[in-house]
Amino acid sequence: MSEAASAPAGPATVGDSEFDRDTAVTRRAPGVYDIDLSAGWTVLGAVNGGYLLAVLGRALADALPHPDPFSITAHYLTASRPGPAVVRTEAVRTGRTLSTGQASLLQYDDEGNEVERIRVLASYGDLDALPDDVRTTAKPPALPPLERCFGPQDGPSPVDGGSAIADRLMIKLDPDTLGWALGQPSGKGEMRAWFGLADGRDADPLSLLLAVDALPPTAFEMGLSGWVPTVELTVHVRCRPAPGPLRVAVTTRNLAGGFLEEDAEVWDSADRLVAQSRQLARVRLS
Amino acid sequence: MSEAASAPAGPATVGDSEFDRDTAVTRRAPGVYDIDLSAGWTVLGAVNGGYLLAVLGRALADALPHPDPFSITAHYLTASRPGPAVVRTEAVRTGRTLSTGQASLLQYDDEGNEVERIRVLASYGDLDALPDDVRTTAKPPALPPLERCFGPQDGPSPVDGGSAIADRLMIKLDPDTLGWALGQPSGKGEMRAWFGLADGRDADPLSLLLAVDALPPTAFEMGLSGWVPTVELTVHVRCRPAPGPLRVAVTTRNLAGGFLEEDAEVWDSADRLVAQSRQLARVRLS
Repeated sequence: MSEAASAPAGPATVGDSEFDRDTAVTRRAPGVYDIDLSAGWTVLGAVNGGYLLAVLGRALADALPHPDPFSITAHYLTASRPGPAVVRTEAVRTGRTLSTGQASLLQYDDEGNEVERIRVLASYGDLDALPDDVRTTAKPPALPPLERCFGPQDGPSPVDGGSAIADRLMIKLDPDTLGWALGQPSGKGEMRAWFGLADGRDADPLSLLLAVDALPPTAFEMGLSGWVPTVELTVHVRCRPAPGPLRVAVTTRNLAGGFLEEDAEVWDSADRLVAQSRQLARVRLS
Repeated sequence: MSEAASAPAGPATVGDSEFDRDTAVTRRAPGVYDIDLSAGWTVLGAVNGGYLLAVLGRALADALPHPDPFSITAHYLTASRPGPAVVRTEAVRTGRTLSTGQASLLQYDDEGNEVERIRVLASYGDLDALPDDVRTTAKPPALPPLERCFGPQDGPSPVDGGSAIADRLMIKLDPDTLGWALGQPSGKGEMRAWFGLADGRDADPLSLLLAVDALPPTAFEMGLSGWVPTVELTVHVRCRPAPGPLRVAVTTRNLAGGFLEEDAEVWDSADRLVAQSRQLARVRLS
């Protein structure tokens, strides 16, 4: 077989990439989907919440008449594990411009009983049908050029590279929000990074659900360590992202009573604010 | 009957006020509640979304083992009308610290069929059980003293007083965000006000759900008029509010594609950030 006949060496594409294969759901019955949750999107054994949201978002995109999640909220109930799972969806209301749906991700305990992992409520629309007016006053985050930011692959392991998901993401952190990795957290609840998929697949509305929950916790820059489990995550997808790397800025303003919020903004290469998210997370003070 | 035996003339209290009476739900069966939606909380005939969220929040507080909404998300499906309604709840998961529940508000069409108005997903906890650490970096909004702010009752009707809800709320807008009422909107997506209930009832977690959706739309200050219907509203209640008036600051950063987000912060008299909310709303450009 000649070299010319082998697979092209170019970047992965939307629809033909590891992210697409690992979020693919199989319709078992109307509104019911099977999936094998991949171990490739875990952080220290825990399946990443953004990857899980993308799985649920994909099932809802199939179950509802509109393709794109305009607003999607997930409550994380129990820890998901790699392996078989079922997504059960319900079309709550179907409208002309928006449809609202609900979904549950379930797995099985040792006795084979269903255990609910995540409950989702979402409204879907068609991003391509929106008018192209933009009156935003928001400004893109001030990030150094990508080549002056740092990821797990750079230098003497400044960022924990022990997570499977790290091999699948292109995350380059702003040095100004990397102090925690050097033992000198800034004390500010900020985390900024360039973001993409490691195989070069461009962003789409589903991968934005991953982008908002992929950076290290802002709590690290506030001098805290340990697990920051998400209670609830809401994402607004506002625009179809242009090709090229994304910029993600995450901010925490209120750490109190053992909880914090993380607000994320995602900007595309055309300087459009393509997604806004907020999550409520628990934090163990240390 | 002597004057001494008549009702005390002091302010209304939590549990004995118009807001409490108008959000009271009656349990018909386990998890199912009846309510008569009051016409007193309407804006030009439409029932206020924050009042409706408080009704749903109250039903969930009864249905779940924890009392306070830590994170509550509502998707507004169809327009609610004053009159009879049913709330159906489901306890999704009950944990030690948090419980997750779902609720639907339903009314009836002319043929007596149930029509779903609102679908809610929420996690509840106990605010009084939280540790009292505060490491917030957020600052309270800079608002002039209450007596230098303006409401519907002040002056030559600077704010539309034609809504029933205006009689039940104490809203005093910062003059800096009142330009729209004088035909001179600032162009900035900001709205700030002192907030309370007109009968003097102090705030509690349920009335915070009302506070985040009670100010005029930020779109007014961006020079737009008309209806700004909420698609989705998420509220995080972070702290039990201290007695006294609240300060509410609402900000819009991204108006694009016919949608905008409204972020609200609610601060209490003790300078604690007691609630954070975000809603996605549709806007008709004019």
